[in-house]
Amino acid sequence: MELRPLADHLVVQLAGDDSLPSGIVLPDTAKDNPQRGRVLAVGPGRRLSNGARAPLEVGPEDVVLFDLESAKKVRLDNHDYWLMEESDVLAVITPAMVQA
Amino acid sequence: MELRPLADHLVVQLAGDDSLPSGIVLPDTAKDNPQRGRVLAVGPGRRLSNGARAPLEVGPEDVVLFDLESAKKVRLDNHDYWLMEESDVLAVITPAMVQA
Amino acid sequence: MELRPLADHLVVQLAGDDSLPSGIVLPDTAKDNPQRGRVLAVGPGRRLSNGARAPLEVGPEDVVLFDLESAKKVRLDNHDYWLMEESDVLAVITPAMVQA
Amino acid sequence: MELRPLADHLVVQLAGDDSLPSGIVLPDTAKDNPQRGRVLAVGPGRRLSNGARAPLEVGPEDVVLFDLESAKKVRLDNHDYWLMEESDVLAVITPAMVQA
Amino acid sequence: MELRPLADHLVVQLAGDDSLPSGIVLPDTAKDNPQRGRVLAVGPGRRLSNGARAPLEVGPEDVVLFDLESAKKVRLDNHDYWLMEESDVLAVITPAMVQA
Amino acid sequence: MELRPLADHLVVQLAGDDSLPSGIVLPDTAKDNPQRGRVLAVGPGRRLSNGARAPLEVGPEDVVLFDLESAKKVRLDNHDYWLMEESDVLAVITPAMVQA
Amino acid sequence: MELRPLADHLVVQLAGDDSLPSGIVLPDTAKDNPQRGRVLAVGPGRRLSNGARAPLEVGPEDVVLFDLESAKKVRLDNHDYWLMEESDVLAVITPAMVQA
Repeated sequence: MELRPLADHLVVQLAGDDSLPSGIVLPDTAKDNPQRGRVLAVGPGRRLSNGARAPLEVGPEDVVLFDLESAKKVRLDNHDYWLMEESDVLAVITPAMVQA
Repeated sequence: MELRPLADHLVVQLAGDDSLPSGIVLPDTAKDNPQRGRVLAVGPGRRLSNGARAPLEVGPEDVVLFDLESAKKVRLDNHDYWLMEESDVLAVITPAMVQA
Repeated sequence: MELRPLADHLVVQLAGDDSLPSGIVLPDTAKDNPQRGRVLAVGPGRRLSNGARAPLEVGPEDVVLFDLESAKKVRLDNHDYWLMEESDVLAVITPAMVQA
Repeated sequence: MELRPLADHLVVQLAGDDSLPSGIVLPDTAKDNPQRGRVLAVGPGRRLSNGARAPLEVGPEDVVLFDLESAKKVRLDNHDYWLMEESDVLAVITPAMVQA
Repeated sequence: MELRPLADHLVVQLAGDDSLPSGIVLPDTAKDNPQRGRVLAVGPGRRLSNGARAPLEVGPEDVVLFDLESAKKVRLDNHDYWLMEESDVLAVITPAMVQA
Repeated sequence: MELRPLADHLVVQLAGDDSLPSGIVLPDTAKDNPQRGRVLAVGPGRRLSNGARAPLEVGPEDVVLFDLESAKKVRLDNHDYWLMEESDVLAVITPAMVQA
Repeated sequence: MELRPLADHLVVQLAGDDSLPSGIVLPDTAKDNPQRGRVLAVGPGRRLSNGARAPLEVGPEDVVLFDLESAKKVRLDNHDYWLMEESDVLAVITPAMVQA
């Protein structure tokens, strides 16, 4: 793994984006609609007031639905990664849905 | 189930909407009035400060009243789904009311 | 009961409103003054940080004083219902006052 | 008692106001200065995070100092009552001060 | 004592103000600079989440530094009193400093 | 000590300022850059929700970096003192750095 | 170490910046993109409500990704240092990524 998120953050790659050359611009309508992304890594969880960690509900390889504007894009080695808090995840798409 | 909500989120489908072709636009007045929706799935509950989960009061098949503007619409496979937090649910409509 | 409120919400009907045909408009001055309403149903109470519920102080049949603008009106089956949190209740009017 | 406040709310009547006909308008300067009021009733106290109640520091017959604009006026049976949270009370005036 | 503050509030009199006739207006520059005041009375302390009180750090006869605009002036019996929360106290001036 | 701060507040004197006559005005650029100051006194610490105090990390004689606009200046006996909360301290400068 | 951060703060130096003469201005585009920085020092951690410290997830020598506008620049001895809270760190870049 190359990017290690903290607390309740996660790193997501847009679905199907791993083969696209960097610099491809999403159409404007894409910015209004939630996007599908694949989770690459998650943090250890937000710290509770008693000091323990609250593990995340999502994990690597989950496909999540999220809004581009509530995530932070970082570009490293010609790939785009999206950083967000777990609370920015709208929902997880289960395999049944992905194959539909 | 195809959409898995997190924490205290739920996925709702507008009552009667499962047979409508996608793209039908609700009249403007509908946006001002609370809508009836059927709960499709709920998250495991918000995490309390002691680390435990607080299970939701609503569950699948419940009919809930909610405002469209306090929910997030996502369109998947030609169906519209509404995502919201449980605190955005105005009330549950019990079967007696549904049949009235 | 037909409307089931969640958490610390309650459902209220304006005092004397059960015989009025739906659509009657309250005069403007009414919007500035607190209104009397009869509680129809209450939620199980807000969840405390230890996971327990904090039961409400008001219950069905209580007559409460509240501001229309801090409540949410929903119309079902030609009746108007007012949804609010318990903290939006200004005070309970006890029977002695109701008969005055 | 006729008005029952909830939580940490209290019902106050302006000092000397029980003999005034309703509708008398306080001069504008009064709105800038704190007013004296007699406490008629108090709620059971705000609920702490452990579920217990925090009883109020003020009680019936206390004379309190408060700002009109941080209280809510309700008119019932030709009398004006002021509703506020305990935190809106500026101070209690003890008997020694009242007789001065 | 004539004014009894609640919670973590305190009643302060401007230093040297006990001999001035009421109505004397402080110069404008005074409003920008912190003022010295003598504490007349303090509340029992803010209630902690476990229900106990957190006693104040300042007490009667302490000389405190505070900004006029973060305090509330009340005039009673021709004297001006300043009400504030303990967190509005900038610092306590110890006797050594007062005599300087 | 002459100024006693409360809770998690501290009193700071600008580095090198103890010999300057009061009234010297810092250049405008100084207002944009963090300043070095010597801690004169600290409060007993912010009270935790269990009632205990959280002692400060900085103490008298520490040299701290802080922004002038996040501190409150008070002038006493021809000296300027800066009051701030510990969270306004950007960092402590250790002796090695001071001598550099 | 020369700068000692408090609580959950950290001191970061821009990657590759230790050899640059002070005063070099980053291009405008740099301000929009997250920057890589090397952690020089971290605080003891934010204090939890039970009084204990929550140690940081990042430590000295970690390479972190952060936005310039969510950090505070201080210039000491002709070097620029960036101060931020741990929550301002977007992610840690692991050695594998650094060598890519």
